[in-house]
Amino acid sequence: MKRVLTADTPLHVDQEVVVKGFVHVRRDHGKLIFFDLRDAAGLLQIVVVPSVSEEASKVASELRPEDVVEVHGLIKARPEKLVNPKLKSGTVELSAKKITLLSKAETLPFDMGGASLNLELPTLLDHRSLTLRHESVRNIFLIQAAIAEEFRNAAKTLGCTEIFVPTIAAGATEGGADVFKVDYYGHEAFMIQSPQLYKQIMVSVFERVFVITKAYRAEPSVTTRHLSEVTMIDIEIAFIDSFEELLDAFEFVGSSIVKNVSEKYSGIFKNFGIEKPLVPTKIPRLTLRAAQKIITERTGRDLSKEMDLNPEDEREICLWARENHKSDFVTVTHYPTKKRAFYTYPDPENPEYSLSYDLLFKGTEILSGSRRINDYDQLVVAMKARGVDPKNFGMYLQAFKYGMPPEGGFSFGLERITMKMLELANIREASLFPRDMERVDERFSKREEKTGNDQKREK
Amino acid sequence: MKRVLTADTPLHVDQEVVVKGFVHVRRDHGKLIFFDLRDAAGLLQIVVVPSVSEEASKVASELRPEDVVEVHGLIKARPEKLVNPKLKSGTVELSAKKITLLSKAETLPFDMGGASLNLELPTLLDHRSLTLRHESVRNIFLIQAAIAEEFRNAAKTLGCTEIFVPTIAAGATEGGADVFKVDYYGHEAFMIQSPQLYKQIMVSVFERVFVITKAYRAEPSVTTRHLSEVTMIDIEIAFIDSFEELLDAFEFVGSSIVKNVSEKYSGIFKNFGIEKPLVPTKIPRLTLRAAQKIITERTGRDLSKEMDLNPEDEREICLWARENHKSDFVTVTHYPTKKRAFYTYPDPENPEYSLSYDLLFKGTEILSGSRRINDYDQLVVAMKARGVDPKNFGMYLQAFKYGMPPEGGFSFGLERITMKMLELANIREASLFPRDMERVDERFSKREEKTGNDQKREK
Repeated sequence: MKRVLTADTPLHVDQEVVVKGFVHVRRDHGKLIFFDLRDAAGLLQIVVVPSVSEEASKVASELRPEDVVEVHGLIKARPEKLVNPKLKSGTVELSAKKITLLSKAETLPFDMGGASLNLELPTLLDHRSLTLRHESVRNIFLIQAAIAEEFRNAAKTLGCTEIFVPTIAAGATEGGADVFKVDYYGHEAFMIQSPQLYKQIMVSVFERVFVITKAYRAEPSVTTRHLSEVTMIDIEIAFIDSFEELLDAFEFVGSSIVKNVSEKYSGIFKNFGIEKPLVPTKIPRLTLRAAQKIITERTGRDLSKEMDLNPEDEREICLWARENHKSDFVTVTHYPTKKRAFYTYPDPENPEYSLSYDLLFKGTEILSGSRRINDYDQLVVAMKARGVDPKNFGMYLQAFKYGMPPEGGFSFGLERITMKMLELANIREASLFPRDMERVDERFSKREEKTGNDQKREK
Repeated sequence: MKRVLTADTPLHVDQEVVVKGFVHVRRDHGKLIFFDLRDAAGLLQIVVVPSVSEEASKVASELRPEDVVEVHGLIKARPEKLVNPKLKSGTVELSAKKITLLSKAETLPFDMGGASLNLELPTLLDHRSLTLRHESVRNIFLIQAAIAEEFRNAAKTLGCTEIFVPTIAAGATEGGADVFKVDYYGHEAFMIQSPQLYKQIMVSVFERVFVITKAYRAEPSVTTRHLSEVTMIDIEIAFIDSFEELLDAFEFVGSSIVKNVSEKYSGIFKNFGIEKPLVPTKIPRLTLRAAQKIITERTGRDLSKEMDLNPEDEREICLWARENHKSDFVTVTHYPTKKRAFYTYPDPENPEYSLSYDLLFKGTEILSGSRRINDYDQLVVAMKARGVDPKNFGMYLQAFKYGMPPEGGFSFGLERITMKMLELANIREASLFPRDMERVDERFSKREEKTGNDQKREK
């Protein structure tokens, strides 16, 4: 008999079916045993009565949470007062005739049956293969999958071709120090810090490209915002007619992801206590200096010497956008050239500032990008000015040697946008198996007899 | 004025437009200059006549292949005898009024204007940022993007959720020796050899998952079939009712990718000289032993002591499938247990053979998979029997400790399937920027003054 998903059981009232899943919680009432069976589609109440099957009762009496079972039995409509509106299967229950144990679980280290897990982060992560099964954790990654899908939909609308770029490189992507080194057949190589250079090369091939790939940051710090391995989501588009065309594409991608995912999964966002985002037709755009002026007017703080927005500023300008433009988004442009990466295009009208942009959402930056320098000589000068050795970027510079169209793009971190949309406290909650300075699956301090760990820990 | 793509120019006859792109080839006829402009959509013939614009003629006379230009001019219908049916814009040409040079290219190291490139592989790869622009190379990666998309479509049809798994691990995935080591904050870590263990964990969360991610193989050899960094495409499904359910899913994914990509891009396959694949409604299924018996009958070769199919056998059994089942596919199951990875499920009826399967296409394996051991104790025994230390796989085993449903899956390499579908001679042609023992973008021998390269080179 073919398995029926729990959510579909109301279609089978008074029929015999087979369901399969994990034992979620068990409640005994004397000889009467109830348990919730959990599958990908939700929960189903199983009722086990000795008068129906002595054998099933015996198996049920020994079931523990997370045991995997196959249950054969009769779907019965529940009396109206016992209907559970929270479950898709809430109008029915299954009266068990036969229970087969498919896999036995050890006793759980903590209760998994409640609506939330209430675990400290290290415990949550030490038991990641178990805690990911809890609905409150699992749902984070349903949202993450939806973000990736909506990103691809937006990229296709823009006419982008998907590319697959390498993650092992000969030079550190942006000349930074915090790179992981790989022993590459006896040669020195690095894990990429971003797909930036390759996606730029690829606009000379496809004009518009998108990529989802891993990037690596060996930052020697443990904060709530840093991961050593992240999933980068990038777009790059060439032959742009204007800076505004880049901003239009950038805002379209950022806002359509947030809008579409929030709408499709409104139930999950409601469970997380998150308000529907305000997505206006036209996102307000400000230069950094204009944004700072507004913040000064609102708070009295003098920002005229600041080269960037600090977290407090980002929250303030987002409040302004919400109050004045009914928008949870605001685009800030023209950051100082020297604060951005070497490939950023200086504004021809005032080269001290650059044709760069950040998209802020509910108080923090979620996407970032710029128009890029597309002239070979100008690019080499910019690299040298930042102490980046052009010799390590031969393949990148080759693209510019043979003609490179005006182009720009933007980028965001999948874990970061997941964290922001669900308002999670720590980015580790938005990574299935987070890597940081102290952990690769298990904590190093647990794995190694001698930790020798004298590394800095930031709060 | 907004840019018009070359393919859309026939909609603008007798109108002034702006086109942008790369100079493809230039042909001078005295004062009359023709050049083909190349953009993402194709080619357009540009005619530059001094009587229309002296200035444009002057700019055009200095244009070189791969220069990036913006051309303003009038779209004119071509006389019928000059129509070029090979181009989407073949019914028109553009008479240039103004040409703006957007980016200047150096003199090319070889001719890029022909239908094919005719370069040796090292030259093709040394100039990868340039050679990728050639239509014959570019099209390989249009097919690659389409394979990824059709894979995702098939995975969604099967009800899979997309997951993003780590690539840095604490243990070598399958216990192999050929792993890249990473200096991870002073700890030893490895780049994953496959997403296998994480996708298995994740079926206890989502039941059905898919993943596209990087995997790394530090094999100390240079062959036409090996890359050090590959893109793995994986599916894993749980709560299977039978082994046949796995085979159905596996064949559905493999054959629908090949079928749909071949149909959508039939023009590209035709240019590569590739016949339309034979995709039957029902792919023939054989156990390894049955396949060997057929090969023996056809060739007289005794395979009764062979534990696997060698390349010659794979070609032979595919010929048999083509002749007898009008199929370019054949599924081979039940490989010897000891020839497959430790997590492979032995056939309960004959544990010497396993519930494993390969999908062969036109003479070689393109997808591979198995049902997995889902019992904790059995898994630990299997690991130890292969010399894999369970201590290094704590997070993986945790999933099995707390109940794991019956499950299985399959996997393939994006570069490998691209290579097979386009019948490329070398897998490097199917990777944008291939990594191997001798190359990360540039060849190590070119990058380093002293190569010290005494590593084995296979032909």
